[in-house]
Amino acid sequence: MHVGALSALLMALQDAPVSPAPATVSSSDSIWLWIALGVGVLALVAALLLAKVVLAGDTGTPEMRVISNAIREGAEAFLARQYKTIGVLAVVLAVVVFFGYYISPRTQPYALKTVIAFLVGAVCSGLAGFTGMYVSIRANIRTASAARSSLNGALQMALRGGAVTGLVVVALSLIGVGVLFLGFGGLTDPVGVPYQLVGFGFGASLVALFAQLGGGIYTKAADVGADLVGKVEAGIPEDDPRNPAVIADLVGDNVGDCAGRGADIFESTAAENVGAMILGAALYPVFGIKGILFPLIVHAINLIASIVGVAVVKTNDTEDPMAALNRGFYVTAGIALLGFAGAVKMMLSGPEVAWGWLVGCGVVGLATAFLFVWITQYYTESKYRPVKSIAEASLTGPATNIISGLAVGMETPAMPVIVIAAALLLSYYFGTQALAGFPGVSDYAKGIYGTAIATMGMLSCAAYILAMDTFGPITDNAGGIVEMSEQPDSVRDRTDKLDSAGNTTKALTKGYAIGSASLAAFLLFSAYLEEVRSIVADKVAHAGAAGVMPAGWSFTNINLAEIPVFAGALLGAMLVFLFSSLAIKAVGRTAQMVVKDVRDQFKENPGIMAGTSKPDYARCVSIVTGAALKEMVLPGVLAVGLPVAVGLIFRNFSSVYSAGTGGPVPTINGIPVNLGGASAVAGLLMVGTIAGILMAMLMNNGGGAWDNAKKWIESGQYGGKKSEAHKAAVVGDTVGDPFKDTAGPSLHVLIKLLATITLVLAPLFL
Amino acid sequence: MHVGALSALLMALQDAPVSPAPATVSSSDSIWLWIALGVGVLALVAALLLAKVVLAGDTGTPEMRVISNAIREGAEAFLARQYKTIGVLAVVLAVVVFFGYYISPRTQPYALKTVIAFLVGAVCSGLAGFTGMYVSIRANIRTASAARSSLNGALQMALRGGAVTGLVVVALSLIGVGVLFLGFGGLTDPVGVPYQLVGFGFGASLVALFAQLGGGIYTKAADVGADLVGKVEAGIPEDDPRNPAVIADLVGDNVGDCAGRGADIFESTAAENVGAMILGAALYPVFGIKGILFPLIVHAINLIASIVGVAVVKTNDTEDPMAALNRGFYVTAGIALLGFAGAVKMMLSGPEVAWGWLVGCGVVGLATAFLFVWITQYYTESKYRPVKSIAEASLTGPATNIISGLAVGMETPAMPVIVIAAALLLSYYFGTQALAGFPGVSDYAKGIYGTAIATMGMLSCAAYILAMDTFGPITDNAGGIVEMSEQPDSVRDRTDKLDSAGNTTKALTKGYAIGSASLAAFLLFSAYLEEVRSIVADKVAHAGAAGVMPAGWSFTNINLAEIPVFAGALLGAMLVFLFSSLAIKAVGRTAQMVVKDVRDQFKENPGIMAGTSKPDYARCVSIVTGAALKEMVLPGVLAVGLPVAVGLIFRNFSSVYSAGTGGPVPTINGIPVNLGGASAVAGLLMVGTIAGILMAMLMNNGGGAWDNAKKWIESGQYGGKKSEAHKAAVVGDTVGDPFKDTAGPSLHVLIKLLATITLVLAPLFL
Repeated sequence: MHVGALSALLMALQDAPVSPAPATVSSSDSIWLWIALGVGVLALVAALLLAKVVLAGDTGTPEMRVISNAIREGAEAFLARQYKTIGVLAVVLAVVVFFGYYISPRTQPYALKTVIAFLVGAVCSGLAGFTGMYVSIRANIRTASAARSSLNGALQMALRGGAVTGLVVVALSLIGVGVLFLGFGGLTDPVGVPYQLVGFGFGASLVALFAQLGGGIYTKAADVGADLVGKVEAGIPEDDPRNPAVIADLVGDNVGDCAGRGADIFESTAAENVGAMILGAALYPVFGIKGILFPLIVHAINLIASIVGVAVVKTNDTEDPMAALNRGFYVTAGIALLGFAGAVKMMLSGPEVAWGWLVGCGVVGLATAFLFVWITQYYTESKYRPVKSIAEASLTGPATNIISGLAVGMETPAMPVIVIAAALLLSYYFGTQALAGFPGVSDYAKGIYGTAIATMGMLSCAAYILAMDTFGPITDNAGGIVEMSEQPDSVRDRTDKLDSAGNTTKALTKGYAIGSASLAAFLLFSAYLEEVRSIVADKVAHAGAAGVMPAGWSFTNINLAEIPVFAGALLGAMLVFLFSSLAIKAVGRTAQMVVKDVRDQFKENPGIMAGTSKPDYARCVSIVTGAALKEMVLPGVLAVGLPVAVGLIFRNFSSVYSAGTGGPVPTINGIPVNLGGASAVAGLLMVGTIAGILMAMLMNNGGGAWDNAKKWIESGQYGGKKSEAHKAAVVGDTVGDPFKDTAGPSLHVLIKLLATITLVLAPLFL
Repeated sequence: MHVGALSALLMALQDAPVSPAPATVSSSDSIWLWIALGVGVLALVAALLLAKVVLAGDTGTPEMRVISNAIREGAEAFLARQYKTIGVLAVVLAVVVFFGYYISPRTQPYALKTVIAFLVGAVCSGLAGFTGMYVSIRANIRTASAARSSLNGALQMALRGGAVTGLVVVALSLIGVGVLFLGFGGLTDPVGVPYQLVGFGFGASLVALFAQLGGGIYTKAADVGADLVGKVEAGIPEDDPRNPAVIADLVGDNVGDCAGRGADIFESTAAENVGAMILGAALYPVFGIKGILFPLIVHAINLIASIVGVAVVKTNDTEDPMAALNRGFYVTAGIALLGFAGAVKMMLSGPEVAWGWLVGCGVVGLATAFLFVWITQYYTESKYRPVKSIAEASLTGPATNIISGLAVGMETPAMPVIVIAAALLLSYYFGTQALAGFPGVSDYAKGIYGTAIATMGMLSCAAYILAMDTFGPITDNAGGIVEMSEQPDSVRDRTDKLDSAGNTTKALTKGYAIGSASLAAFLLFSAYLEEVRSIVADKVAHAGAAGVMPAGWSFTNINLAEIPVFAGALLGAMLVFLFSSLAIKAVGRTAQMVVKDVRDQFKENPGIMAGTSKPDYARCVSIVTGAALKEMVLPGVLAVGLPVAVGLIFRNFSSVYSAGTGGPVPTINGIPVNLGGASAVAGLLMVGTIAGILMAMLMNNGGGAWDNAKKWIESGQYGGKKSEAHKAAVVGDTVGDPFKDTAGPSLHVLIKLLATITLVLAPLFL
């Protein structure tokens, strides 16, 4: 590819011509690729060793093992069936992508490569999810067992279990992209190959979407269903072994939080890697291949920093576990920042590059991560106003609790949006300053590269964050096992402490995930625009003498005042609302099936409530599994189908609707290249992303606030447990469940899926 | 103004130069202005006559009069205090606008005119709201009295009361714009004057925002507060005279629904009139002054058609009153369409205009109105799936009721968004076809004019729709009066029937209002872009030889890929979320004050519950009044302040962030005119509008669906009244109240306020 496009590409970014790129890359530069791959492999080895340490842990009493085995079987059965469903969908899409590329002689040469990248991305994503869950469903019982002797032992066990996920996810993303880059000939055509990797991001997103949707529906349907029929109808406590849905509930924590979030973060790093490499390719004249390999090195640093961070975490029986986890995070962030600065100095500096500004971009990214985490805490912790206001509103019943929670949820995007806007503006400015020595490169390209660097900075401690996140479901499960196997109170106290820290880390990770999605959004838009430009350049070059490419033309004009773009924007925002609606309804319907099964079991076997016979946990697990997998299909297909439909429809109508502004456009035989489909899709992508970010914050933080308002009341406020206020707060918590664990996290993935699907299918819209 | 700008304006719209516009307008053309003004005055006379007919109605029994008087006094006291608060805010803003214009020598000549237009708009809007309420708080008792003899009498009384509002609102909007146009010299400078009318729209929006916010907070705080403490705590029925908040609740229907919605629709027509006249001015070479006066004539037709429509409505004691109201609507729509087609033929035809296509645009607009109304019915009536699904979910308690209602709410924007997108695409296409005979005019200008015509078509039956809307609170009040004065069951049956029809019309009007806001949005964007272009042209012309205006330059490029536009877009969407949050919280806080007062009254005076002494209605009314007025200030100030802040901030930073695409830009002394502030504001406006439309639909339809799910259960489904399902449905209804009657309708106004404030303050952003 891009033999013809390369010079056009350089033209596009430069007013003055530069000397063409060298045909091959010097070995001193390609060393960076080998370093990144090497660190990736070492991280996998480290993960393996960690896993061995975890698996060598004590597995407690026989009662504990019975429960743990039931969880493990349920989770593995779900994952097996889920991957089968996703596999079928992925193969169908692979065929579509292949033929979509194959029918046009221009894209034909990339058909196979794109499909390979897609499948590798999908498989790596699935593998990352599977590995993470494999360890976490074994770490839960070992954490429970360790909690019998010390808090520190349990904390380290859970965090190490989580770290396996973190390391595997980031390492697989790094290795997947690196190996594809190598295999597609990136060392000989470094500028062309990054565009061929877009399939990797799409494969990762597709698996992530279904993993998060399916897992999210599963976990909340089981949770809500178990609560509705157990706590409310039968009056038995949470995690009571008499509840036939209790194992399904514990399974849900693993398939939703572990496997789902693992796929989510895998996709974030994959999409960010590919997007940043495309921008690096566009800036090849400035940085050479080092600019393209820089994102991979950042993740190598991420892996090293996170391993150190995990290693330093320890606590004692009196400390708040959260403090220990935070210490680990600060160590990770510190190392990551130092490494980041060093990598910038070594890879991106040069006589004309003011590299200090680029380090500044990285600092902006990390600061954004910190601010997002802080804001999330403000909105979801009971010591601040928002949660307190919900708890207080519970005094006048469920209606005011709900109104108050929704009001808090709708307030939450305000501060983060200001932070994102500031981060974008700052890093853009820093980018223009850093590259001020290149008068030939447009300010826009410089600025966008600054935002890309900030995104990498933000994701430079992703592995540790993911370890903290997976810590959540492990400790949650450990608590359930301790509860169900009736351990002494001292053990329960320890797991309760860990569980509480786990709830906090889960909420914080969501803040981090949506923050990175927000910041990465602009990077991915730019990659899409650059991809479209490259395709058009290619197309015009193919047309030979009939094609005219205006000097310096680039596709950076997504004009909201044009009807197709505005219509695309409306549809993009609508997609977010409809997708959320479908996800929430799916939870409701699946929960109804759980309720029905539990009621049936109680009726068929009165011994269950009497405690004389065991409920059929597996039947309930099997019902939720089937229903959740069925329900994930419609929202998933909508998310994939709408952008494609918009692109194809507007491709055919756009000539009527073009605003006709924005300077000269490329022509073939004197006819302007039809950019309507690509523009409408860009509108959908950008405004869909904005709506998605806001709605995800509403859902995540609103749900988290409801949850903690309930917990705060349970701690004795406003009458404590069993008061009327508590009943009202339980209603809010139940409403918040599908918000924060199904729709919200799925929206993170949706945002990135929109970006990667448009990247891959851009040729169809032109 | 625009002496220098005029030729630039024509240049902008035309590739080939045309002969300049004539300096004065022939009297045969100016006749249209006189016709429009004449019809406006006649409509006011008709409204006066109708009011006399209504006021001549019987005022029933002394018991009824006691209640009605209490409502009247409360409503008038609220309105008086509300207008005082709004007056202060309006004067402050008038001063800001005056100095904003006065400091620059370029805009100085328009400072006074803009402020005059602003104040006239504000006063007319206030007057429209006041008149409507004046009649409706007198029509309520007369409707109640008429219901003692026949349903037809009561129906006609209520509809005529509503018609007074409808006619006064539309006529004042027409007369206000027409007189300002005349007074500012529109007959000698028809192209320049429309730009000077933008203040009128802003004045109308400002009053509408506070009227709707204040009224919306009042009505739902009183309603929720009365229900919480009356129905839930004291166990007395709705509208029970022992409840001290019952009069406040009935007052709320008037100040929220009558005065608020009146100001809302006044603002819609005002903004649409001004926006369409600006586009007409931009197309002056095509249509001459007739294109500028056409929007006024459309509203003259609107008035005539609506008078006929109201006159034909009659029913008997057995028919569903909704059927009679619908007949009136069909008659109105039919006459409006015929008149519209006639006006197009007479005013917008010509040898080169294919005017049939323009009639097609009008049909698209009317069809959009019908589709919106139908979709609203689908989502809010109990015979369709959505409401049934909420009712069914109530069986498992309040949590599932809420989840299900929110899911329905989030689903609702899907179909309307597709309708809007289709309407925009169709009317744009029709516009290009209609004006295909003008090769000099850009396709974009033609298409946008098509969408403007469609908007006028949609609003061409606004007066009748508003009459149906105000019918709602009148019948609601009549029902309350009948209930509280303990009339026989036959009378109650009649008012119940009317009340039920009133609930439907209120919901439908909201669908209509949001539909018109959606369609008008594009018209108002275009007016803003045209306004910016005109200011820039003016500025460049002022600079004399130092200024360079590229041939054919127009400001139609709102590039989402530029950081300032994207940041503006993010902030615009965020504003919608934050504004909704503040509005909802305001209701919650005010409702708490009602609850407290009612509890205090019950405690201080045990005779109230025993029925031996009267509660102090006025104290409760006074408390809600004060609280609602206090609470409306913060969201209102946010809505006004954020766009201004974004414009001013990005005005100063934009040179760093411009994408540098989109062809040549105007320069002064070789420096490009700084468009960053104007672009960021455009991003805020457009994406804020998109988010506002979706969120308003979520709120309106979600709220309506919850309400009707409760009513459906009350009709005997799922156990009927007092069942557990009913209790759950009451929770949903209470949550939906501030959604559908405070935040949702206020968002309609917010959308249009954003459009008018940016129009007026555009000079500050450049």
